Amino acid sequence: MLGSLPSFARLEAELGKLPGIGGKTATRLAFHLLRTSESEVAALADALLEMKRNVRLCEKCFHVAEDRLCGICAAEQRDQRLLCVVEQPQDLLAIERSHSYPGLYHVLHGVLSPLDGIDPEDLKIPQLEQRLAVEPFDEVIIATNFSVEGEATALYLARLCQQRGVPASRLAHGIPSGSGLEYIDAGTVQHAVSGRRTL
Amino acid sequence: MLGSLPSFARLEAELGKLPGIGGKTATRLAFHLLRTSESEVAALADALLEMKRNVRLCEKCFHVAEDRLCGICAAEQRDQRLLCVVEQPQDLLAIERSHSYPGLYHVLHGVLSPLDGIDPEDLKIPQLEQRLAVEPFDEVIIATNFSVEGEATALYLARLCQQRGVPASRLAHGIPSGSGLEYIDAGTVQHAVSGRRTL
Repeated sequence: MLGSLPSFARLEAELGKLPGIGGKTATRLAFHLLRTSESEVAALADALLEMKRNVRLCEKCFHVAEDRLCGICAAEQRDQRLLCVVEQPQDLLAIERSHSYPGLYHVLHGVLSPLDGIDPEDLKIPQLEQRLAVEPFDEVIIATNFSVEGEATALYLARLCQQRGVPASRLAHGIPSGSGLEYIDAGTVQHAVSGRRTL
Repeated sequence: MLGSLPSFARLEAELGKLPGIGGKTATRLAFHLLRTSESEVAALADALLEMKRNVRLCEKCFHVAEDRLCGICAAEQRDQRLLCVVEQPQDLLAIERSHSYPGLYHVLHGVLSPLDGIDPEDLKIPQLEQRLAVEPFDEVIIATNFSVEGEATALYLARLCQQRGVPASRLAHGIPSGSGLEYIDAGTVQHAVSGRRTL
């Protein structure tokens, strides 16, 4: 059946390359698109091409941008003396959604992972060193994830900041809002206890 | 941030229109596509447009096809006296994967649902009546799903077949392979008991 449907099978194969989309989901999406109007499918295809044409990385912080600088680096009202280092643009967006951070960002596009052959030069770490040398930051907040690689990267970056004489900090590690202690893993509880604050 | 990224936001919005893809998944996919090479994104966009250009419905059974007739209707070795009626092309593919059915198909593209305003004329039921009048079927297997609407549609189609004097049958309803009785819902067990076979 699908042997006689090369275009359909090709779309299924292309959709199946997307992360988190397995064979069955790809088939379901392809059938959905088959029922979708031609103009809507054309809109999706055009959005794909337009994004690829227009979106690039900010020259300064490596967040996604459609101009030379991203909206945050271009915004003069942001605190130019605060820098937050994140793994991915998605992490930056999560912090922005919290409306809790007024400063600038630096997106590493990954974490150090010597076993996978990912060294500082494979990330935007040389560019971070460059910024630390030129921009007068009062504090660098290291917001890599609390995974093994994220923690190791944070340590590496903390040493970099130390060498430059810039104070570095790490996001607080503890119990998330709305969680009951009984459902939280032991490692997080340990961090929450050792990081307790006086009231 | 994404306010300054109209192309990125547009792709997110277009991806979010796909079934089963919520806001967070759309963002994740858009970021994945951002990291993907231009040629791979172009291949996906082209596959979308090509599918829409080439794939249509078989003129006879309404399965997906890239020619006037689908691969099954065009295959002379299929049993022309057996007809299996399914809701969607996906159902047809599931039956084909079972390698248990040698006949032809008719795809309704939905089920009767008077509450949602879906009448026989909104499905490929008039075309089925036409086929029953012209093609000499020995048996019609009604393979709509075992949902309320699927069962009602099966009843409606069974009556149509009766009027034409064509024997109609329904797929067996019972315990699926590899399942333990304790995990099966009561309705299915009830069907399995009432539909038991002598050994």
